[in-house]
Amino acid sequence: MMAGAAFAHRRTRWYLRARDSVDGLARRSPSRFAILVFTSLILLFTLLFSLPIASAARTLTPLHDALFTAVSVICVTGLSTVDMATHWSAFGNILIVVGVNIGGVGVLTLASLMGMVISRRLGLRAKLMAASDTNPSRIHAGPVNEGQTVRLGEVGNLLVTVAISAFAIESVVTALLFPRILASGASVGEAAWQSVYYSAMAFTNTGFNPNVGALAPFADDYWFLSALMLGVFLGSLGFPVIYAVSRGWRRPRRWSVHVKLTLFTTVVLMLAGVAVYIALEFDNPKTFGSLGVGDTIFQSLFMSVMSRSGGFATITVSDLKGSSLLATDMLMFIGGGSASTAGGIKVTTLAILFLAAMAEASGRTEMEAFGRRIPSDILRLAVSVVLWGATTVAVASIVILQISKAPFDYVLFDVISAFATCGLSTGLTAELPPAGVYVLAATMFMGRIGTVTLAAALAASQSRQLFTRPEERPIVG
Amino acid sequence: MMAGAAFAHRRTRWYLRARDSVDGLARRSPSRFAILVFTSLILLFTLLFSLPIASAARTLTPLHDALFTAVSVICVTGLSTVDMATHWSAFGNILIVVGVNIGGVGVLTLASLMGMVISRRLGLRAKLMAASDTNPSRIHAGPVNEGQTVRLGEVGNLLVTVAISAFAIESVVTALLFPRILASGASVGEAAWQSVYYSAMAFTNTGFNPNVGALAPFADDYWFLSALMLGVFLGSLGFPVIYAVSRGWRRPRRWSVHVKLTLFTTVVLMLAGVAVYIALEFDNPKTFGSLGVGDTIFQSLFMSVMSRSGGFATITVSDLKGSSLLATDMLMFIGGGSASTAGGIKVTTLAILFLAAMAEASGRTEMEAFGRRIPSDILRLAVSVVLWGATTVAVASIVILQISKAPFDYVLFDVISAFATCGLSTGLTAELPPAGVYVLAATMFMGRIGTVTLAAALAASQSRQLFTRPEERPIVG
Ligand SMILES: [K+]
Ligand SMILES: [K+]
Repeated sequence: MMAGAAFAHRRTRWYLRARDSVDGLARRSPSRFAILVFTSLILLFTLLFSLPIASAARTLTPLHDALFTAVSVICVTGLSTVDMATHWSAFGNILIVVGVNIGGVGVLTLASLMGMVISRRLGLRAKLMAASDTNPSRIHAGPVNEGQTVRLGEVGNLLVTVAISAFAIESVVTALLFPRILASGASVGEAAWQSVYYSAMAFTNTGFNPNVGALAPFADDYWFLSALMLGVFLGSLGFPVIYAVSRGWRRPRRWSVHVKLTLFTTVVLMLAGVAVYIALEFDNPKTFGSLGVGDTIFQSLFMSVMSRSGGFATITVSDLKGSSLLATDMLMFIGGGSASTAGGIKVTTLAILFLAAMAEASGRTEMEAFGRRIPSDILRLAVSVVLWGATTVAVASIVILQISKAPFDYVLFDVISAFATCGLSTGLTAELPPAGVYVLAATMFMGRIGTVTLAAALAASQSRQLFTRPEERPIVG
Repeated sequence: MMAGAAFAHRRTRWYLRARDSVDGLARRSPSRFAILVFTSLILLFTLLFSLPIASAARTLTPLHDALFTAVSVICVTGLSTVDMATHWSAFGNILIVVGVNIGGVGVLTLASLMGMVISRRLGLRAKLMAASDTNPSRIHAGPVNEGQTVRLGEVGNLLVTVAISAFAIESVVTALLFPRILASGASVGEAAWQSVYYSAMAFTNTGFNPNVGALAPFADDYWFLSALMLGVFLGSLGFPVIYAVSRGWRRPRRWSVHVKLTLFTTVVLMLAGVAVYIALEFDNPKTFGSLGVGDTIFQSLFMSVMSRSGGFATITVSDLKGSSLLATDMLMFIGGGSASTAGGIKVTTLAILFLAAMAEASGRTEMEAFGRRIPSDILRLAVSVVLWGATTVAVASIVILQISKAPFDYVLFDVISAFATCGLSTGLTAELPPAGVYVLAATMFMGRIGTVTLAAALAASQSRQLFTRPEERPIVG
């Protein structure tokens, strides 16, 4: 009895100490914490995916395929080297759905945590200065917009809030998808499973398909496709935006610059994508050539939403014209919102570059957006993220071109798709030799973890900075 | 007699007034002046090239070919839609050599003029502040490093200095080339003409070949190839660097940050290019596969120097592996020095991006290079230039992919070669339909005039800027 109590006591102390050290690491160095968490998850899922019980054929899955699937699932990428609809057993498929949710919720949580580092970089001194300002409008425009930093200080609380939001959104999307899958001829059980699967793949911006034939049975089902777009769109906005908008949707004027900039840039890119796909593909017999005006617009909208990270497609990617492939490369590279399940360099990063050019063109010394001044060190962060992305894509493309001798456009497309965790593929990924598979897996990891941690790591490295004026800071990367 | 004197007087007044108005425009708005000068030159040379007397066959050259050649010559690009060795008459060939010299000297002069705008942006106020500082080292580190702004205030004087420098360098290169061409079996007259032609093509970074077979007869002549590299290298450094180094080559420590940054980045890129070409092409049977170690290194060095804007090649570009094409795309896009005959976004622009990332990574609030602080608005200029370049290349590539249905890698290569006025070609340029030829001509114009004028136009737009500390400003774009 005494020994048991002592053991329980020791176990509790061990548990508390572990929790404290996790919390400490997450606070002290959120970027290292994120890398640790994602690496551990990927190793665990590689092990699980390679087990015979995970495959439909009950055989060992080769290491390169198991690792690639684990990275693709945890990084919510959606690229695959095996046929996702047939290769995996029920257990394997459950692993996939659980994995993308862990990966999606994990990235939302960790990136939100790191967004706080970037937002709070000014430190105590500047915050106190802003608070001591007696002008109320000044306080509102103060250095840290709390709506954007989610007002949550602890990893645990943040994780719970993110998980509840994800569950709520995925439930709505599941409910929207279920009757359509049922109507397409599936049994109730099958429809329930497929709607949960599709909904998870949409909100986490992964883009795997559970059924043979992928989206082909639903290519004309605009309700189904719209529900997918809703899930992908919400997932790609990023948690800080979802949180701020859901809390203050009645007062859009009080949204932070980050929220406004993300929404504005997302809508502009979406419309630009629609216009480009209509212009380039309306006369392509393999894609939209046989469609009417309304269908061409809808399918172009679907392509535009999915290319920035969703990864679903109603057409065969390699049927697109070369010009559309290049346009898609660009949309994929930009990606979605910061602290979202989408990848890429992030829409705010691109927006900051254009704000810098606009400030320069109009002769202002400061970047401005929505009536707020944006400090110039954010531009340095944005430039760092773009350099990281361009370097990763260039090196990976050169290496895979050397390994595979595949066509240049297909290599560039699949590498950017991997880096930006988009998941659209020209078919190259499934044909790569193991060496190429490892390179592409590394590219997915660098794209997912790299862009998210880089900005925070760089921002955290700054220690001595004195500002004299209050500022507001959007998140980049 | 009276009437004659009055006429002469009126003519002198007209001439003086014209000279004053040219000088005024060049000072008030050097970017508009540059666009005006280049557009006029291109229209004049288009007319001349289309004349029957300019072609070897004594026939009218079609408008798209004449325009493309005029743009390629005046923008010192080196791309061609006709066979440059056989299409033109003696008159046409003289036009080409005169044209590249006018284009080369013109761009050196105008870009140097605009570099002054960027360097002098601080205006009188800051200069007076720096001058009133009693600390002599402070004055030395003052806002305007005069070595970099060439100490020449007038367009005419600057033009003469540039022309003399160009003539001196081209004469040396001609003298180095002449005996080798003679030794290859050409007559004295032919050797004289070809050495003048090659020398002009080298220093102006154009890269046309006067003889059938291009560099094939000289592919093993390392003296000849080294002389070409010398001309290309000096041309690609930029006039401010040549001027500063020739004036103060004994005291490298006193060179401006612009000079040091240009030389450092140029050497780093050159060595990186050598390493990449060796690694990717040493086992390619179509290029360096049959060469020994020394030959592979030399030919890789030649490729590396030429790909950043020279445009000469000893191998067939389309024989390069896909990975080398992508690496070359990147080197071409970066290009040479500011205010040089080379194109691209310029090496200092790239350097500024990396300095920003390094400042961010080390937690400094200011970019630093060679012991100097670089003001953050230079980063905005650099970002603007890169956005301009990326947008031009992306739009031109998408349009030409639509027009030509050519392979993606060839389109991207030739478009970047046009934008960066490099002149290397996969062979696509010669096969484009007229619509594509016009698009590529526009791309060359935007690349040559755009990057050079953009930074100056943006820098000049700034009017109210108060600095409290003296700074030094490298040129970008
Ligand atoms: K995805
Ligand atoms: K050239």
